[in-house]
Amino acid sequence: MQEPVTAAILVIGDEILSGRTKDKNIGTIADHLTAIGIDLLEVRIVGDRREAIIAALDALRRSHDYVFTTGGIGPTHDDITADCVARAFGVEIGEDAVALTLLAAHCERRGVPMTSARRRMARVPKGATLIKNAISAAPGFMIGNVIVMAGVPSIMQAMLADSTQYLRTGTRVHSVTIDIGRPEGDIAEVLGAHQASNPDVVMGSYPYFQDGAPKVQLVLRSREPARLACVARGLEDALRERGMY
Amino acid sequence: MQEPVTAAILVIGDEILSGRTKDKNIGTIADHLTAIGIDLLEVRIVGDRREAIIAALDALRRSHDYVFTTGGIGPTHDDITADCVARAFGVEIGEDAVALTLLAAHCERRGVPMTSARRRMARVPKGATLIKNAISAAPGFMIGNVIVMAGVPSIMQAMLADSTQYLRTGTRVHSVTIDIGRPEGDIAEVLGAHQASNPDVVMGSYPYFQDGAPKVQLVLRSREPARLACVARGLEDALRERGMY
Repeated sequence: MQEPVTAAILVIGDEILSGRTKDKNIGTIADHLTAIGIDLLEVRIVGDRREAIIAALDALRRSHDYVFTTGGIGPTHDDITADCVARAFGVEIGEDAVALTLLAAHCERRGVPMTSARRRMARVPKGATLIKNAISAAPGFMIGNVIVMAGVPSIMQAMLADSTQYLRTGTRVHSVTIDIGRPEGDIAEVLGAHQASNPDVVMGSYPYFQDGAPKVQLVLRSREPARLACVARGLEDALRERGMY
Repeated sequence: MQEPVTAAILVIGDEILSGRTKDKNIGTIADHLTAIGIDLLEVRIVGDRREAIIAALDALRRSHDYVFTTGGIGPTHDDITADCVARAFGVEIGEDAVALTLLAAHCERRGVPMTSARRRMARVPKGATLIKNAISAAPGFMIGNVIVMAGVPSIMQAMLADSTQYLRTGTRVHSVTIDIGRPEGDIAEVLGAHQASNPDVVMGSYPYFQDGAPKVQLVLRSREPARLACVARGLEDALRERGMY
């Protein structure tokens, strides 16, 4: 089996930290990475501050195969992500001819002027590959192992789809969920024993309330579907024996 | 004006990174901290891995006044947060008499047995203060500047409310939102110039789509309400002059 491919997400924006905007991108990217067999190992959220962005980006890009950033690539003064990425990689940043053409065509279609603010969105670090989106035309980009995307969810989703062609993907992790209509404390010992006997299948326990009653979902995860099915059946049998399933 | 009080959040759980569970706690904590005048400066999400949890916790607790953790304090084998926190602080962990009493009473009320798995939830690092919740009775705790809470949103919310009595709070940041019915690129130059002339009020620009049309909200933030109102009115006037508001 090949080495796992790992990733991190860096969400950039004061509005997430103030609570004004509730992030919707982390869950979307997490689902997508799981689907294409990339292990998301860490997420960080930082504000619109140059040093914080560069420090987080440098830490993450050195420890993971890929880093996906969201936010901070629009036309306004608080959009500083592209400059921070250029700085982190030690490369120049300038207007990209293809990005400019895409933006100009989009402005023409929409009948809005190509202001100098809008031109800012054509600035990308030297050597980057454009990540396109059909919604706003303003591109994201990939440089080294860093994929820079917009913060608006619909645009981020278009960019995430476009960026996937450039990624090395891995073997997908499959999961089985066992829904238990009783509190987590009831099944903890059986689950712990089953995890100890089957360390190759990762088992998680996720409590929730339904109509005020405590319930739990057990999730088993593995890259080997046959092994996963066998261990999941073993857990169901063990729970059934004790009248818990 | 007093020094700002700063905080970070550490979300712990494989289920968030796999995409299975969409985090709802970050936004809730962010809103609460804004309301009580604490500046949230960073968020990290890590999986259920001892080294990752301890490394993130140590980095965050050294750089911020408070760290709020969510997740990993239940009765199952994958709940390792309390042990990691004890390790990070270099203190012993053991059953807390008060926590055990709370749990035992809750089990009796619900008519469920006090299993050894449930007793695990009474284990807290030595010297910690219990953070209570009326929903599951299993307490969180505060040790040093770290507040350890559950991951289930309703329980987390109860713990967040209980923990607030132990926090040093600051001067609240107020905000004014100006809704602009046109794309961000139109107003970027006016906004940038106004930010440059008024560096003491932080201005952010948050684009969104409404029925497919690009619009933007401008958010101005300051700890001084009178100054905020004055700068916001100045921006509205500048936009109105150009027929943009």
